[in-house]
Amino acid sequence: MTDRPAKPVSASAVDKHVYKVFPNDMNSHNTVFGGMIMAKCDRLALVVAERHSAHVCVTAAVDSIHFRAPAKGNDTLLFNLSLNRSWGSSMEIGARVEAENSYTGEVRHILSAYFTFVALDEHGKPVDVPQVIPETREQTRRFDNAGIRRQARLETRGKLTSR
Amino acid sequence: MTDRPAKPVSASAVDKHVYKVFPNDMNSHNTVFGGMIMAKCDRLALVVAERHSAHVCVTAAVDSIHFRAPAKGNDTLLFNLSLNRSWGSSMEIGARVEAENSYTGEVRHILSAYFTFVALDEHGKPVDVPQVIPETREQTRRFDNAGIRRQARLETRGKLTSR
Amino acid sequence: MTDRPAKPVSASAVDKHVYKVFPNDMNSHNTVFGGMIMAKCDRLALVVAERHSAHVCVTAAVDSIHFRAPAKGNDTLLFNLSLNRSWGSSMEIGARVEAENSYTGEVRHILSAYFTFVALDEHGKPVDVPQVIPETREQTRRFDNAGIRRQARLETRGKLTSR
Amino acid sequence: MTDRPAKPVSASAVDKHVYKVFPNDMNSHNTVFGGMIMAKCDRLALVVAERHSAHVCVTAAVDSIHFRAPAKGNDTLLFNLSLNRSWGSSMEIGARVEAENSYTGEVRHILSAYFTFVALDEHGKPVDVPQVIPETREQTRRFDNAGIRRQARLETRGKLTSR
Amino acid sequence: MTDRPAKPVSASAVDKHVYKVFPNDMNSHNTVFGGMIMAKCDRLALVVAERHSAHVCVTAAVDSIHFRAPAKGNDTLLFNLSLNRSWGSSMEIGARVEAENSYTGEVRHILSAYFTFVALDEHGKPVDVPQVIPETREQTRRFDNAGIRRQARLETRGKLTSR
Amino acid sequence: MTDRPAKPVSASAVDKHVYKVFPNDMNSHNTVFGGMIMAKCDRLALVVAERHSAHVCVTAAVDSIHFRAPAKGNDTLLFNLSLNRSWGSSMEIGARVEAENSYTGEVRHILSAYFTFVALDEHGKPVDVPQVIPETREQTRRFDNAGIRRQARLETRGKLTSR
Repeated sequence: MTDRPAKPVSASAVDKHVYKVFPNDMNSHNTVFGGMIMAKCDRLALVVAERHSAHVCVTAAVDSIHFRAPAKGNDTLLFNLSLNRSWGSSMEIGARVEAENSYTGEVRHILSAYFTFVALDEHGKPVDVPQVIPETREQTRRFDNAGIRRQARLETRGKLTSR
Repeated sequence: MTDRPAKPVSASAVDKHVYKVFPNDMNSHNTVFGGMIMAKCDRLALVVAERHSAHVCVTAAVDSIHFRAPAKGNDTLLFNLSLNRSWGSSMEIGARVEAENSYTGEVRHILSAYFTFVALDEHGKPVDVPQVIPETREQTRRFDNAGIRRQARLETRGKLTSR
Repeated sequence: MTDRPAKPVSASAVDKHVYKVFPNDMNSHNTVFGGMIMAKCDRLALVVAERHSAHVCVTAAVDSIHFRAPAKGNDTLLFNLSLNRSWGSSMEIGARVEAENSYTGEVRHILSAYFTFVALDEHGKPVDVPQVIPETREQTRRFDNAGIRRQARLETRGKLTSR
Repeated sequence: MTDRPAKPVSASAVDKHVYKVFPNDMNSHNTVFGGMIMAKCDRLALVVAERHSAHVCVTAAVDSIHFRAPAKGNDTLLFNLSLNRSWGSSMEIGARVEAENSYTGEVRHILSAYFTFVALDEHGKPVDVPQVIPETREQTRRFDNAGIRRQARLETRGKLTSR
Repeated sequence: MTDRPAKPVSASAVDKHVYKVFPNDMNSHNTVFGGMIMAKCDRLALVVAERHSAHVCVTAAVDSIHFRAPAKGNDTLLFNLSLNRSWGSSMEIGARVEAENSYTGEVRHILSAYFTFVALDEHGKPVDVPQVIPETREQTRRFDNAGIRRQARLETRGKLTSR
Repeated sequence: MTDRPAKPVSASAVDKHVYKVFPNDMNSHNTVFGGMIMAKCDRLALVVAERHSAHVCVTAAVDSIHFRAPAKGNDTLLFNLSLNRSWGSSMEIGARVEAENSYTGEVRHILSAYFTFVALDEHGKPVDVPQVIPETREQTRRFDNAGIRRQARLETRGKLTSR
């Protein structure tokens, strides 16, 4: 366990990161390529993890990416990521992507996802990270749900027929 | 329910898709950028889904992406994707990414992931897809595990504190 | 002149937009390619302009891009853009790019630039945009300087030997 | 001459490598950019050459790239590459690209090309590679044609007015 | 046969097109990726073909790409392309790529290639193009060699075992 | 001050550099993305600066980028860059971008910009560069205007409210 002081969620969060969609972001059905959105989330979640841990971090897992609605040409994507909870060297980072029509201000929910990053020391070994302090009701709800999801992941793994 | 005949896993699978890693695939720690690997998996899974369903498909969800080990410069990535199971208009596609050292033939397991795609008709509405026929012991194991994962996803969703 | 109500700077600003530098962002001297930073600024400034005007906008001019210091591999770039002032259909948007060391929190000033966008109506003709309301001392300073820069641009143009 | 044992064609071949076409793969006429297809063939041929030789390889020449038909948006490209024959440190690798309509299964022939790679030792000097064993009638036909093409290349070179 | 007047080589040529190499142009051996060079040549040759023919053009074939030497990081590539000869709707365009050390002025020969483009009318059918007028001794040599290469291609095709 | 001999403008200029526009160069309004044009200018200006100075160079500033007209799909961009004037270690490089319709030969003016580069010695310190010799009337006009712009920049800076 690390003895570095706990940090609030806001110290590492990425908030309303905008990305204007261009034609080369499209898939073969002319909606925004989901793989591009996932890749951007991963790259932004890395910043959250490294800010919180003050260490080099790597993606360990991604859970429950849900695409709610397609994003279209001329949308402005909004990426919101913040640390939900940490356990030892692991951190769960939640991502919520929205599509803004910048002319009308209308916003639609596009995608939610949960990334698990691990902090590494200078020898590439996992290293404990500070606890996170949820400061709002919404952050507390995310903190609690992160625990439920972690429990469910461990249980599901036990049920699967081994390879 | 569709009355189109069931199809074997092999009719839509992507097998040993090779990708030689170049310096512009690297993240800031000089291992292969995980977001790029996820994006490639999504684009390949789309082919599996569209071959099986004979319809336009979209990514609905991604579950349980696990990064087992980093891929390095000069590795050749091997992408293997196949349809595990279908339910109505939904299909679970499993992805397994390996890193091959093409000089020695050594292969390491890099990532596993499960993609759910939905098939759409010409009006953009979900449309039923054929059943899948597992033909090998391994395909049968994946078919069974897809059911366990689906069950677990539904149960976990019920437990989470609502927004 | 538009009769739409004036809007505060904060209604359209892009604040602390993060971008983790990867090896493929580098130039031949292994610092971050300045052209990439300019292109990102232009794409983000477009969002500011379209949010403020509620119209399609195009870049008309860019002034006084100053590179203060090079950004390096592993830096996290922070892009800050906001509307300084508007005149008829024109808007001056200021951009300030910083490089954050996400491990230590240290931030360096990398680049400043001033973009002029023009709002267009549905026929592609310039259309007046709302006035902007500076709400902080810093926003007021930027509003004033935008006027000085505009005056200087007009004067300089008059002095140049015509083509 | 190397004394390493000959290897079958199948040990290094790339078979039915799929690539779903997206809008950013298009040229100015809205068919798939031929240069992108060539570049992908070169990157895949490198894998074939390095698997066969177990050495670092470089492209020495490309011959007889023929574009049979344009590929379109929404096609899935299929890349097939295999080693036709080797001479000393040189290897001829044949590439055949097809376009699959993944909804109907229809496949069209898009491009054929012949790449010559050279294997290099750790000092960057050419190094002999194993012989290749054609195992099918088709592989034998390709082995024979590789010899005819090599002969023709040498003859043509002799006829050209020197520079 | 077209009755449009013949055009000189210089009317369509691309001369000393510069491209500064950046790290994301590199292959896994840290020399410039040959596929990228081929793709750039194809895109530049398209300009030569469309300038000469005043029609939409497509790549029909590429012959005899020879890589003479690798290009390195920090090199400036120089692309030179010009029309060698035309036959009906076909045009042979020669490409010569050099690597310049911009600090010393030293130039090395990297690659030669011959592209065949076909001009198309508004219905996508081949359309005759103007004759080309070689104006220098070097252009005349290229005109003659284009004929020898074309003859050799036709002869080689006749010798290959048919599929 | 350097004692290396002055060099003519033509020794480092980039002239009629062609770039065929493809769909992935487009912005959300389906005209060519201005940020891409700026980035290309910066990369080409680097070549001019390094050729003239024979040193590693970095972008210090960009002034007065003016977008005159949008470029469209299927246009061929023409980039023209040359050194206008030098002061100590600084160089002003003018860029003029045009859009050519390669079928008709029609050319439109798209963008003008002025880049200031600084030459660095092997320790990363500014190093004096040779004087430039304007050889044409147009080059002389640019040389004179570079001085006027430099004077105006210094004056404007003095007028701005300090931060």
